[in-house]
Amino acid sequence: MNSRVILDRRPDGPITTDLFRFDETTIPEPGPGDVVVRNIYLSCDPYLVGRIQTVFPVGEPVAVRVVGVVEASANPDFAAGTIVWGFLAWEEYSLVPGGRALTVVDPSLGPISHAISVLGMPGLTAYVGSMELGRPTPGETFYVSSAAGAVGSVAGQLARLAGARVVGSAGSAAKCSHVTDVLNFDACFDRTGPVGDGLDQHCPDGIDVYFDNVGGSTLDAVLARLNPGARIAICGQISTYVERGDGLRNIMNMLRARATMTGFSIYDHTHKLPTFLPRMSKWLADGDVVYVEDIRHGIEAVPDAFVGMLDGDNLGKRLVQVSPDPT
Amino acid sequence: MNSRVILDRRPDGPITTDLFRFDETTIPEPGPGDVVVRNIYLSCDPYLVGRIQTVFPVGEPVAVRVVGVVEASANPDFAAGTIVWGFLAWEEYSLVPGGRALTVVDPSLGPISHAISVLGMPGLTAYVGSMELGRPTPGETFYVSSAAGAVGSVAGQLARLAGARVVGSAGSAAKCSHVTDVLNFDACFDRTGPVGDGLDQHCPDGIDVYFDNVGGSTLDAVLARLNPGARIAICGQISTYVERGDGLRNIMNMLRARATMTGFSIYDHTHKLPTFLPRMSKWLADGDVVYVEDIRHGIEAVPDAFVGMLDGDNLGKRLVQVSPDPT
Repeated sequence: MNSRVILDRRPDGPITTDLFRFDETTIPEPGPGDVVVRNIYLSCDPYLVGRIQTVFPVGEPVAVRVVGVVEASANPDFAAGTIVWGFLAWEEYSLVPGGRALTVVDPSLGPISHAISVLGMPGLTAYVGSMELGRPTPGETFYVSSAAGAVGSVAGQLARLAGARVVGSAGSAAKCSHVTDVLNFDACFDRTGPVGDGLDQHCPDGIDVYFDNVGGSTLDAVLARLNPGARIAICGQISTYVERGDGLRNIMNMLRARATMTGFSIYDHTHKLPTFLPRMSKWLADGDVVYVEDIRHGIEAVPDAFVGMLDGDNLGKRLVQVSPDPT
Repeated sequence: MNSRVILDRRPDGPITTDLFRFDETTIPEPGPGDVVVRNIYLSCDPYLVGRIQTVFPVGEPVAVRVVGVVEASANPDFAAGTIVWGFLAWEEYSLVPGGRALTVVDPSLGPISHAISVLGMPGLTAYVGSMELGRPTPGETFYVSSAAGAVGSVAGQLARLAGARVVGSAGSAAKCSHVTDVLNFDACFDRTGPVGDGLDQHCPDGIDVYFDNVGGSTLDAVLARLNPGARIAICGQISTYVERGDGLRNIMNMLRARATMTGFSIYDHTHKLPTFLPRMSKWLADGDVVYVEDIRHGIEAVPDAFVGMLDGDNLGKRLVQVSPDPT
């Protein structure tokens, strides 16, 4: 049977596990041109909140990025046993009509789960936000929130490769130790304390680049500490997805600092994957970028894995493995 | 005698005329290399608020841009009778040690007052903000606040030359008529009503470029209506200079719209004057840009002219003429 995680109703407040229910269907059979994928790794991403609030159809499985293996195929482009990734769903098996939007994964590049983490959209997001929008230069101070997370952990390491002094914040002392000791950031502070104090302590020369994953009062505290010519890359605003908070009071500093703030969506940048993949693969192989995945197991774990990630219980990219990895 | 407007104390709230006092000194005499300028046009600019709050020395004349004529000179570069502009002060005569930072004005380019208005920093500010940061393209919607003001009036006309649909807001129905009838904007609405309603009515297709002179709730209303790829040029935030207001709640839309917001200071762009001046002179000569100056008379009018401008009683660039214009 095929177990699936269904969006049962729209949230009217925080995202909770009871928004979802399970159902079971038969394992799909491919019609002409179709591909059936046995899903292995399901993604849990912060951006899903907005889609759950307004876009995803109620009563359907939740659409996410998945790495899997071709279980059955009536499509010559995808032989059984091929490792692929695509926008499939929180389910054990996915029917992909015509094999559309499936991409073959090259297992020689690293763990196949990387296709939806450091070698996929989260990694490319870090790359575009840090290198193209942030553009840190040697000696500059680069600050990233959610520094232990799927994107922030890479964003900071890329800025360090560019010569910047890299400061992160994360949701616990244990995460901060991970960020400095494993990811080699110059400093990391616990965001559960006053963020302004953390920035004053760890960014004494002000902030040149901010890679923003959280928005809200953290962004406002950064605005108050911008250096001339500062760049802010808006990747996420997770603190505001459910409650908007108090509003930003320090936008005047965009003028004082002649700063630039850019919101970006990785879907405008997917054409950069061919140039990104070999660069990131080499950084990983050389140990210049360390990537950690936080993998839960079993389809029944999905709602809790997702909601827990939103609450910050993950260390690195949150995935759920729902069947054996053949590689 | 030389009448001067002195900053008497720092404000602890709104900018009022009683922050200033007058004094009289003797007309200065040039020492070796010095130039004495008889001031003709004194500028009144919104950006002075921040300097009055924190920078300008109490007990000294207020430093502003001035157009004048060389009254006495001990400097071979500046003959008596030469029209010049520079950072002088709210006073009738200025002593310029060594003639430093004086620029000769070419009266053939237009009224000499233009050297501190449309052919000076306000015009260059509009040019950089509209053309380099806003980059409107044909068919896009370009919105500018303070559309009847010294900078906004030019910003909108340049966007119209670039083919955009140009919408302004201003502080009265009379100003709005001026903006549409004289400055040829496509639309203008009275900002004393709900700004969101004005934007909904006049920007039904959303906003592609916002040239921001006011910040605050107007900026927040724009954020809620950004089109994909929108650009926001932060030129001024006059609504927040004294009271910060409620804070911005719609920054999330920077992400949704993949928008860019850039604060800029014209002092980073003064090297562009040589390319700007002939272009703007031609636009003015051809009638493509119409520029209006709102000129008060007499040094004693300065405090009221400045405070009134902050309250929006001006139509176009506010200047005070304090001696006869020989051209």
